[in-house]
Amino acid sequence: MLLPQLADIKAAHRRIKPFIHRTPVLNSSQLDRIFDCSLFFKCENFQRVGAFKFRGAENAVLSLSPEEKRKGVITHSSGNHAAALALAAALNEVKAMIVMPETAPKVKKNAVKGYGADITYCKPTLEAREDTVKVIMEDTGATLIHPYDNFNVICGQGTAVLEFLEDHKDLEVIIAPVGGGGLLSGTATTVKEINNRIMVIGAEPVNANDAWKSFTTGILTPSVNPVTVADGLLTSLSKLTFSVIKKRADQIITVSEESIIECMLLIWERMKIIVEPSSATVLAVVKENPGIFKGKKTGLILSGGNVDFRKLPF
Amino acid sequence: MLLPQLADIKAAHRRIKPFIHRTPVLNSSQLDRIFDCSLFFKCENFQRVGAFKFRGAENAVLSLSPEEKRKGVITHSSGNHAAALALAAALNEVKAMIVMPETAPKVKKNAVKGYGADITYCKPTLEAREDTVKVIMEDTGATLIHPYDNFNVICGQGTAVLEFLEDHKDLEVIIAPVGGGGLLSGTATTVKEINNRIMVIGAEPVNANDAWKSFTTGILTPSVNPVTVADGLLTSLSKLTFSVIKKRADQIITVSEESIIECMLLIWERMKIIVEPSSATVLAVVKENPGIFKGKKTGLILSGGNVDFRKLPF
Repeated sequence: MLLPQLADIKAAHRRIKPFIHRTPVLNSSQLDRIFDCSLFFKCENFQRVGAFKFRGAENAVLSLSPEEKRKGVITHSSGNHAAALALAAALNEVKAMIVMPETAPKVKKNAVKGYGADITYCKPTLEAREDTVKVIMEDTGATLIHPYDNFNVICGQGTAVLEFLEDHKDLEVIIAPVGGGGLLSGTATTVKEINNRIMVIGAEPVNANDAWKSFTTGILTPSVNPVTVADGLLTSLSKLTFSVIKKRADQIITVSEESIIECMLLIWERMKIIVEPSSATVLAVVKENPGIFKGKKTGLILSGGNVDFRKLPF
Repeated sequence: MLLPQLADIKAAHRRIKPFIHRTPVLNSSQLDRIFDCSLFFKCENFQRVGAFKFRGAENAVLSLSPEEKRKGVITHSSGNHAAALALAAALNEVKAMIVMPETAPKVKKNAVKGYGADITYCKPTLEAREDTVKVIMEDTGATLIHPYDNFNVICGQGTAVLEFLEDHKDLEVIIAPVGGGGLLSGTATTVKEINNRIMVIGAEPVNANDAWKSFTTGILTPSVNPVTVADGLLTSLSKLTFSVIKKRADQIITVSEESIIECMLLIWERMKIIVEPSSATVLAVVKENPGIFKGKKTGLILSGGNVDFRKLPF
């Protein structure tokens, strides 16, 4: 299997740079005091569409051939990747077809519609989603842009930590959330080729701990119907992301639902920025494992900030 | 009456600089598109204690004589000024005494306690608050640091726009919220002495429109028991702030409760930052008066980000 390399991620960065936001790195003396370490937050909640997902989607769309662009792109997602692909396609005048479960929140349907994508609704099962995608692909010849089991998507996601290390060369640890593993794969690839001594940790809800299981046993073990407040991390590793993470990440650490909610609230209250529960997993890792991070310059990737304010977990 | 001048505000800035955060200026292409102008947000929600109030409190404490410092400072407030004065005092090893209504939210009581201030509770009336302060002042000789009817506090608040204009010299309009008028007084003083052609507008809830009334009639007209979601703007202008604002602000514009809530949600959703309702009044002014701002480079001061997440207005 062809794994992404740093050179691919640097090429992706050159490609997407004119379209993405260079997100800021923030810190908080209050949180440093609470956790007795030196925390730096890469704020992908400020990225376009409110999540790092735009990096991967934009890189995938820009990497299409003219013929592929003409036929359009397709994905099934009810989350940030759908909006990211819809925007990336719109910016490049490519048609985007999004298959969404009919049960998806209205706010997410509207976001995707707002970027001009075509939505096809289906029953809320993985089977229905995949079947619907298949039918449309046969009909249109559209290219499937998978949310994470995709070389170009992983390369795009790896650009966040490339910027992070440009701004803060001396980070000793970097923590990224892990759901399907696109962000963690891109992150580990970038970090380990730049400086092998920087530790790369994946943060995962214990309620959706397929990456932890797979990493620990060495056997790809998907989750079955996981339930967690971190709605961006319900997906399981794919063959591709597992191959990268197994080889390049140092550790997967799981965190409780209570820690995720507490850390989300801490980030809101102390940093005055909006992050979604998935983002809070990285701080929850620090909270639950003070021994590892004490006194260390620790980089945390805040993956996104798309939250339904009418359904807050606190 | 001695009004602050730019030189006083510059002196305040030199004095407080080592203690305050230099807050960032953010913009949002989405909000620019929605409102068809070029908006720049000075993010005092990222200031220490989560509000611009720390600037004024810190300047007031640093301006005390050694003798005054020894006797401590006192104020009555249930809001951001109480926390700001408590922190400013703590940083300077000065005792802070805060008189709060017994009905104040627990989160605010805890914040003030957390900075090590002494709290005295009283009945929730202005009379009880003033009487309680008087008794303690007689007892201790503490110096009253009024939240806005105070020369040094106004000078401190004026430093936010000083930084804003350092970063963005070519702003054509600046909008600041107006409650007691400390921020607007400091802002108007700074702006008009630096560049008289920049328009200075105060944003006020129509439900607490004492500044608008006073400005329009030329007669100081306090509000009586106003009710607005913008809980930081319930106070009325004082003689000192009215004198400054009458002379130096260009306009007071009132906004509806609906606009404040809608604009607060817009800032949360699009910018992914947390602002309190008072901060949203500045964007509400733009929303309700598109004619004035179309195509103009407009600076908005986001005054603070202290919100009770369990009582959101949307």
